[in-house]
Amino acid sequence: MNPADTLSDFSTFQPLLDRPIEDKLMDFQREQRLKHLIYAAQLKPDLLARLSHLADMIRRMARQRESNLALRQLLSHKRAMLYFTQPSTRTFLSFMAACQILGITCNEVRDPKTSSEIKRESHMDSIRMFSSYFDVIIMRSPIANFAECCAYMMNRLESQEMRSVPTINAGSGSDEHPTQALLDFYTIQRSFTFDSEGAAPQTKLDVLRQSYPDLQPGPAGKTYLFCGDIGRGRTVRSLATVLSQYHSQRMIFVSPDHGALKLDQGLRSRLVDAGVTVHEFESLDAELNGQPILSQTDCFYMTRIQREHNSADDTEQMAQLDLGPYQLTPARVNQLREFSPIMHPFPRDSVVQELPMQIDSDPRVMYFRQARNGMWVRAALLVHLFDASEELFMAYSQFYRD
Amino acid sequence: MNPADTLSDFSTFQPLLDRPIEDKLMDFQREQRLKHLIYAAQLKPDLLARLSHLADMIRRMARQRESNLALRQLLSHKRAMLYFTQPSTRTFLSFMAACQILGITCNEVRDPKTSSEIKRESHMDSIRMFSSYFDVIIMRSPIANFAECCAYMMNRLESQEMRSVPTINAGSGSDEHPTQALLDFYTIQRSFTFDSEGAAPQTKLDVLRQSYPDLQPGPAGKTYLFCGDIGRGRTVRSLATVLSQYHSQRMIFVSPDHGALKLDQGLRSRLVDAGVTVHEFESLDAELNGQPILSQTDCFYMTRIQREHNSADDTEQMAQLDLGPYQLTPARVNQLREFSPIMHPFPRDSVVQELPMQIDSDPRVMYFRQARNGMWVRAALLVHLFDASEELFMAYSQFYRD
Amino acid sequence: MNPADTLSDFSTFQPLLDRPIEDKLMDFQREQRLKHLIYAAQLKPDLLARLSHLADMIRRMARQRESNLALRQLLSHKRAMLYFTQPSTRTFLSFMAACQILGITCNEVRDPKTSSEIKRESHMDSIRMFSSYFDVIIMRSPIANFAECCAYMMNRLESQEMRSVPTINAGSGSDEHPTQALLDFYTIQRSFTFDSEGAAPQTKLDVLRQSYPDLQPGPAGKTYLFCGDIGRGRTVRSLATVLSQYHSQRMIFVSPDHGALKLDQGLRSRLVDAGVTVHEFESLDAELNGQPILSQTDCFYMTRIQREHNSADDTEQMAQLDLGPYQLTPARVNQLREFSPIMHPFPRDSVVQELPMQIDSDPRVMYFRQARNGMWVRAALLVHLFDASEELFMAYSQFYRD
Repeated sequence: MNPADTLSDFSTFQPLLDRPIEDKLMDFQREQRLKHLIYAAQLKPDLLARLSHLADMIRRMARQRESNLALRQLLSHKRAMLYFTQPSTRTFLSFMAACQILGITCNEVRDPKTSSEIKRESHMDSIRMFSSYFDVIIMRSPIANFAECCAYMMNRLESQEMRSVPTINAGSGSDEHPTQALLDFYTIQRSFTFDSEGAAPQTKLDVLRQSYPDLQPGPAGKTYLFCGDIGRGRTVRSLATVLSQYHSQRMIFVSPDHGALKLDQGLRSRLVDAGVTVHEFESLDAELNGQPILSQTDCFYMTRIQREHNSADDTEQMAQLDLGPYQLTPARVNQLREFSPIMHPFPRDSVVQELPMQIDSDPRVMYFRQARNGMWVRAALLVHLFDASEELFMAYSQFYRD
Repeated sequence: MNPADTLSDFSTFQPLLDRPIEDKLMDFQREQRLKHLIYAAQLKPDLLARLSHLADMIRRMARQRESNLALRQLLSHKRAMLYFTQPSTRTFLSFMAACQILGITCNEVRDPKTSSEIKRESHMDSIRMFSSYFDVIIMRSPIANFAECCAYMMNRLESQEMRSVPTINAGSGSDEHPTQALLDFYTIQRSFTFDSEGAAPQTKLDVLRQSYPDLQPGPAGKTYLFCGDIGRGRTVRSLATVLSQYHSQRMIFVSPDHGALKLDQGLRSRLVDAGVTVHEFESLDAELNGQPILSQTDCFYMTRIQREHNSADDTEQMAQLDLGPYQLTPARVNQLREFSPIMHPFPRDSVVQELPMQIDSDPRVMYFRQARNGMWVRAALLVHLFDASEELFMAYSQFYRD
Repeated sequence: MNPADTLSDFSTFQPLLDRPIEDKLMDFQREQRLKHLIYAAQLKPDLLARLSHLADMIRRMARQRESNLALRQLLSHKRAMLYFTQPSTRTFLSFMAACQILGITCNEVRDPKTSSEIKRESHMDSIRMFSSYFDVIIMRSPIANFAECCAYMMNRLESQEMRSVPTINAGSGSDEHPTQALLDFYTIQRSFTFDSEGAAPQTKLDVLRQSYPDLQPGPAGKTYLFCGDIGRGRTVRSLATVLSQYHSQRMIFVSPDHGALKLDQGLRSRLVDAGVTVHEFESLDAELNGQPILSQTDCFYMTRIQREHNSADDTEQMAQLDLGPYQLTPARVNQLREFSPIMHPFPRDSVVQELPMQIDSDPRVMYFRQARNGMWVRAALLVHLFDASEELFMAYSQFYRD
């Protein structure tokens, strides 16, 4: 199957696809609410705050049997289609779990060679079939812009007063993966609340301020260190863009000196334009203003070298790279600020060991919690898309009074 | 796997298989109710009316959250096995959705090479295992008569006072696909109710009668036009047979002049014997009694040329066919009667374009609604097979008073 | 994938793996309750009695709509991961059904080549991801000790006050399959209750005692005959070990004279040490103390010759074996004691026909009921692991008073 061919039935959307991204965003909104989630650029601070709040409520309700059962009633009249024709285990299972928490029944199509494609059904007809049976389409596809085209088709159907359902982009090609940015943000937001379970929040922040007098809660005014495959990691691109919306940010990018792996200059310009102070280094042991960069890091974000995206030339060149300077060894962990979350979109590479297993029990390690946060925040997204926030508030208030 | 071999354990049912179809039907009934759905010939007018009524109730209840939740309780103590060893996306998803609407939990076996077959388990043992765990078996198999044999096995178990469950034929080989006939009928039934959403039904019919003075509600007394792959389309065969049970029918078959594609003479005889007036043409632009056939059409049913059933000879011959006369262009749509539903069992062929996308927004287009109707009417079938009609009536009456 | 490599990340557990089994068992317990089910050796008489009792309640509640719905609420806030990278249909579906009976939502990973493995994720990280999203991991793997290592990892997480979930071994390599032993035991327990549906239990036992004056209810003091692939059948090994915990047992093993198929001498010693009287024969027509062994059999357990475990040499040698003496023909069935259950872990071989279909309607045949019992007892296990026995008792008492 030639991806170009398969898009022929999307040619009708070409003028919409060709617009600058900011022009597109309102097509995925209904007043203040999302209709579809296609781009990380839709994740504005106001929406992020709302989704984080919903996720917090869901997390809490899931803990006890009775409130958990109330959650499972919330959207139990809805059915989801997980259309994942690009292999994915983690994101797939996370969305499954998110649906199940809310009682949404899941259906899946994972094999790109469905019988209907053999019968030369167009992609548009397939998607419209899904929208006949199901109430939301969550899709990951190797075809660039496929989710975006679906959203346009759904909008067109809606304008004709026909059945239309929300579309969620669960990762398209090497481009966009907005729910990863959402879960990363939510993890950062929670980490910078300095709200340890069961403790009074002031206390923890107060203690930390003895060492870090300027420390403020929230994602703004921090130093973020991104390490590894900066050039090809869509999660870095999306998360950095989301964080750049908050004031006084500093971002340090550490990657090997290889064209494919280094910070893309387009992204660098956009970050600088947004007011971010940007630095680039080729080792985790580098210094900035006479201090090790690690000791200045408020949030550490590691990524895996994505070998599967290597060209033939890349493979040869990268085999020669010394990846030692990009490994978060226990010694380097010790240099990080004492509250700095250690994050990774996962999976990590068990051969390269950018995050060696010895550091797993460090209390700053967030990479397993990130996965669980992804589940809560994806559930929050579904509540938002189905306009069920109010029902969630009501259900929550039956169990908790804060 | 040699299909002949796999049937060896069904040889015990050969005398039952060899009977004429009308002799078989009572084996699939329990008094007035279906025990199994194997043949479209089981779809008698009385049953069709009952299933259509159940489907209407389910459709209505699914619209609102509260009644939808009541539906999801109706059969939530049941578990279904979808045993689909012949590839199918559409029918599979439709049955999944139908089950989910009623709260039935779904399980699937789709790979014909299950571990048990490698261990030389007989088909009968596999099916009996399914019936140990699940409450209904919905099956699509490339092996002719497999579903029928299962039904006989279940009957035998029942006669020995052992556990037995209903069997639904979801398409066997190129033979039978009774639930497709059921959903097509239901779509026609709804179209000929002339009951537009929210409007008084008399009004619409009254308006139409100004142009078509003899128009009556219901499937009887109509002109049906079937176009495309008439010879190999099991849906045409089944639907025409079902419709032939109603009085004063006229059926027009339009197909290319190719032996495999034309109306089978056995079917023609059976239709004529049932009192249907039958006509055959080789172009949608043909005339009958001095008028274009399209302008006389009360219901238009298009099918895809099923290339995957071509022999090597067919492929060559069909490549030479001009399919232009069998395409429902916008100009031809304009000639259809103003109330005529435009149907297609889908998928349509995006290369041949027997139904070009330009006509999709015509209000007579039913092919997407057909898919959704399939879901409602399959749910109705499950309610009927589980003898839960009364529970459905009771649940319905809690929400609606008509 | 080299199984040895994949275990490299489990090397940390090697000292735990190297202990004698009895030392390990307490690692899988939490006081009197199971934390994980890894070995059949965990199935002590006290636990077997508790699980059998839970299974009886679940079985009874599943029969009626209202009590069935109460069951479906019991664990509907839980989500299961069925991680089955070794092919299995029967065990997989049985666990699915068991989960569904209790309202547990199921998720599955069946393809060993998940995207994460291509990205070189370690097994430990994969399992820990599952434990982030799901509440129990049910696993079948070709890698020996994989389930055991998972249990150790979960224990380690628990000791660090991190999220940890129960692990169930659903069959690992050719080693252990504890839930098969559990369902076999439950079937025997029920058979030896002499409790025919709806009849007073005394009556049936009284009648039998006229022919078998020493007959006692329960699994103790019986003659068990195991036939077929004794050497490689993990189910025989596990079940015999479980039964050897009860007093006054006699076990007869009948297998062809082939090294791979005969009783393992280690197992023989352990049975004898436990007080079991052990006999071995090479034909079902053998005699013991001047009487046919079949006429002395209280419980008959047949197994399939597992050709898929043959070495190249085995295949040649076994092709020469006469399997006639190991077939349970109708004539041989007639010699069995009139209450003797006829069991088989299934699938049976439709070519070898160790259990020919002609005997299927004999009332002593249990092999189809075994499958259904497996579902009840696996549901009981889940209730036990989730510590929901008390909730089950309460739900049960709302419907029944015994």
